[in-house]
Amino acid sequence: MTSTLQQENSKQLVDRAIEVLAKGSQVAVRDFVRSLYPAETAHVLESLGPEQRTKIWSVIPPSVMGTILVEVNVDVGSFLLKITDRKDLIAASENLGSDKMVDLLHVLPEPLLSQVIETIGTNNRAQFEQSLRYDEHTAGGMMSQELLTVRGDVTLDVAARYLRLRGKIPATIDSLIVVDRKEQFQGLLPLSQFLSHDPHKKVAEVMDAKATTISYRMPTRDVAVLFEQRKLLSVPVLADDGKVIGLITVDDVVPVIRAEAEHSLMGMAGLTEEHDMFAPVMTSAKRRAVWLGINLLTAFLAAWVIDLFEDAIQQIVALAVLMPIVASMGGIAGSQTLTLVIRGLALRQVSAGNTVSLFFKEISVGLVNGLIWSVVVASVAAFWFHDVHLGFLLGAAMMINLVCAALSGVAIPVALDRMGIDPALAGGVLLTTVTDVVGFMAFLGLATLFLL
Amino acid sequence: MTSTLQQENSKQLVDRAIEVLAKGSQVAVRDFVRSLYPAETAHVLESLGPEQRTKIWSVIPPSVMGTILVEVNVDVGSFLLKITDRKDLIAASENLGSDKMVDLLHVLPEPLLSQVIETIGTNNRAQFEQSLRYDEHTAGGMMSQELLTVRGDVTLDVAARYLRLRGKIPATIDSLIVVDRKEQFQGLLPLSQFLSHDPHKKVAEVMDAKATTISYRMPTRDVAVLFEQRKLLSVPVLADDGKVIGLITVDDVVPVIRAEAEHSLMGMAGLTEEHDMFAPVMTSAKRRAVWLGINLLTAFLAAWVIDLFEDAIQQIVALAVLMPIVASMGGIAGSQTLTLVIRGLALRQVSAGNTVSLFFKEISVGLVNGLIWSVVVASVAAFWFHDVHLGFLLGAAMMINLVCAALSGVAIPVALDRMGIDPALAGGVLLTTVTDVVGFMAFLGLATLFLL
Repeated sequence: MTSTLQQENSKQLVDRAIEVLAKGSQVAVRDFVRSLYPAETAHVLESLGPEQRTKIWSVIPPSVMGTILVEVNVDVGSFLLKITDRKDLIAASENLGSDKMVDLLHVLPEPLLSQVIETIGTNNRAQFEQSLRYDEHTAGGMMSQELLTVRGDVTLDVAARYLRLRGKIPATIDSLIVVDRKEQFQGLLPLSQFLSHDPHKKVAEVMDAKATTISYRMPTRDVAVLFEQRKLLSVPVLADDGKVIGLITVDDVVPVIRAEAEHSLMGMAGLTEEHDMFAPVMTSAKRRAVWLGINLLTAFLAAWVIDLFEDAIQQIVALAVLMPIVASMGGIAGSQTLTLVIRGLALRQVSAGNTVSLFFKEISVGLVNGLIWSVVVASVAAFWFHDVHLGFLLGAAMMINLVCAALSGVAIPVALDRMGIDPALAGGVLLTTVTDVVGFMAFLGLATLFLL
Repeated sequence: MTSTLQQENSKQLVDRAIEVLAKGSQVAVRDFVRSLYPAETAHVLESLGPEQRTKIWSVIPPSVMGTILVEVNVDVGSFLLKITDRKDLIAASENLGSDKMVDLLHVLPEPLLSQVIETIGTNNRAQFEQSLRYDEHTAGGMMSQELLTVRGDVTLDVAARYLRLRGKIPATIDSLIVVDRKEQFQGLLPLSQFLSHDPHKKVAEVMDAKATTISYRMPTRDVAVLFEQRKLLSVPVLADDGKVIGLITVDDVVPVIRAEAEHSLMGMAGLTEEHDMFAPVMTSAKRRAVWLGINLLTAFLAAWVIDLFEDAIQQIVALAVLMPIVASMGGIAGSQTLTLVIRGLALRQVSAGNTVSLFFKEISVGLVNGLIWSVVVASVAAFWFHDVHLGFLLGAAMMINLVCAALSGVAIPVALDRMGIDPALAGGVLLTTVTDVVGFMAFLGLATLFLL
């Protein structure tokens, strides 16, 4: 089974799911699902419409439902919760570790929550309640509380014997955490060190005492950047008093990086990264309606600006023909700057110290491109409408709009970010408002002044 | 030093770099740079303008230049290469492993290439030349050829002694690869297994024989998805004959996930993920000019459509006032669908089997939102211009355009993807062309038919 699967990419997985479902044999569907990893099942569920999704879900045993529920996006998770039996859900949550459990709680509806919490054994309860205390968007919310700690004054041999007695080591744990009597962090001991050193050496001699540690308060975003930049595999998380309270491993970070990068992409279209591609039509329509409504206000504002110049258009219809060019080019140039700055902000490359030089650079780029394309646009328009003055005004308006676009492309996201508003979400609408209004105003205004 | 740094996020890092540079002491700059990890230095270099970038680069010893060069994006890399001494560059490349070396080759200018290649010791040369044979965008291009292999018929104890003799194990290696006499893959042995099993057990008893393996031909995209979905830490890469030729670890995958997700975001604005935020003005302007030029063609096409209805506009100026609303709402709705589908394609969730149902879903969403906002737009326009017919036509045109937007939002990226064209790059322009042309055509056309 493994050998077939490993040659298959996730797209083929979706196609195979559709194929198996089409054949209609429940046994075949069950066998197919059984061959998948939890996240692969989640991928298939996210890629199918509600009907097929229900069919797949119905063959999944309650004992693994929990591991799949924490993998799907929030939208699909809510859908699955609605079609799942209460009893099954409680069974599903029993098989999760305390950190996964906390993830599940974010999707569980209120009445079920208390029931699930009751099922947690007293042993896990303390750890679980501890987990709830940490903000989901910080290192505390990401970390696993499963730790292997060791004291620095024992030999590698003793530590190894202790590990052997303890039994199976979780696959994601690549290091032991070295602590002193007061559980204060001393260093990190990669498991590979056991295999490249004399067993009689002390742990403290071999450990990495300069290992990176972080506070449980560090935002997930920064944790992800830290892992990427330092190529870390695991990082101990410390409480304010220096006690080690958890461990974040690189596999915890991968979903954060994915979500972070997708957030900008989806946000710029007014969507979220948790969006379900096959959400019911009414749910999708309702969500997107809000975004369209906001943009409609922008469009009406632009229309109102045009209306101010009704007389000019009545006298020179060519103005109506050419005015969308000015607005559209401003929008495109502005969105290039905007995208660049939004990425820079997300990657923490735009800071207080370099915003000003970024400003000047973008305005310069706007000027250069304004110059090039103004000449082109002006020539085409002058030739088309046999009117050199019209061409000249069109070029001038475009120049003004491209510089404004560069200005707002930097200023809007930076300002939003400082106000704590997500620039990926609100930046595009604001920018288009500026480039539309300035574009129409500049072109029609100049025409009113000089052509009428 | 570590304790200060670890509390600092990368944004503060950039600010601190600017601060240190402002003070003007070369020693302070050197000390600052020395406290950074290579990727952190790369981050700082990417976040600074050319002048400050040069200052930072000048204090970096040639021996670590290589590790930084492979971290910065291509644009910044080329900039740094230009300001680096030839001798230093050759020294820089000497300290890189063969896989990193290959990364460096992508940024090195032609004449330098041969000199650098000559510096490679004969020992590494075979491995290095092997690396060059693999496509950069496949598993072969990602993998490290540094492997620790072991035979299945030895005991854990013997394997451990062999490792100890071998010396330091690279930090990213978390597993040994178990092979038979013919170097065929048998299984994976996580290093942690040494510590949780009796040393007298055979490797073959303890290893994971069902571990996921991949072909060296698997595209990097699929490798990334596989790691994410199966939560893998390392995957052996096999040649066609089943021989193990390399190992990919999760830290190799993190940059791929980041680049992949950013590619869509930047592509939609006609930029690449390798874009240097502080590239020289002329370089930036030249690159973006192409994108603006392509969009200008679209804008002129839309203008030409408007020009067809010159008479209608001359008679009813309100048409010119309202027409941008139709085009703009179509563009927004279309880009929502487009973004969703582009993400679906990148995540491998959109496949041949579910495209049709996605089509119907998006068209339904378009119909619902078309209905809602057409009524709003129609009412506002009817009230504004005291003309119920005009309002009705505006609503109808918007309805048509939103459905067209939904249709093209799915059809354009899916078609581009099948043709092997990047949908993130070309999708937006094509979509805007459709929504502009259809929007103006529908509104002005309907008006010509029913109002004149």
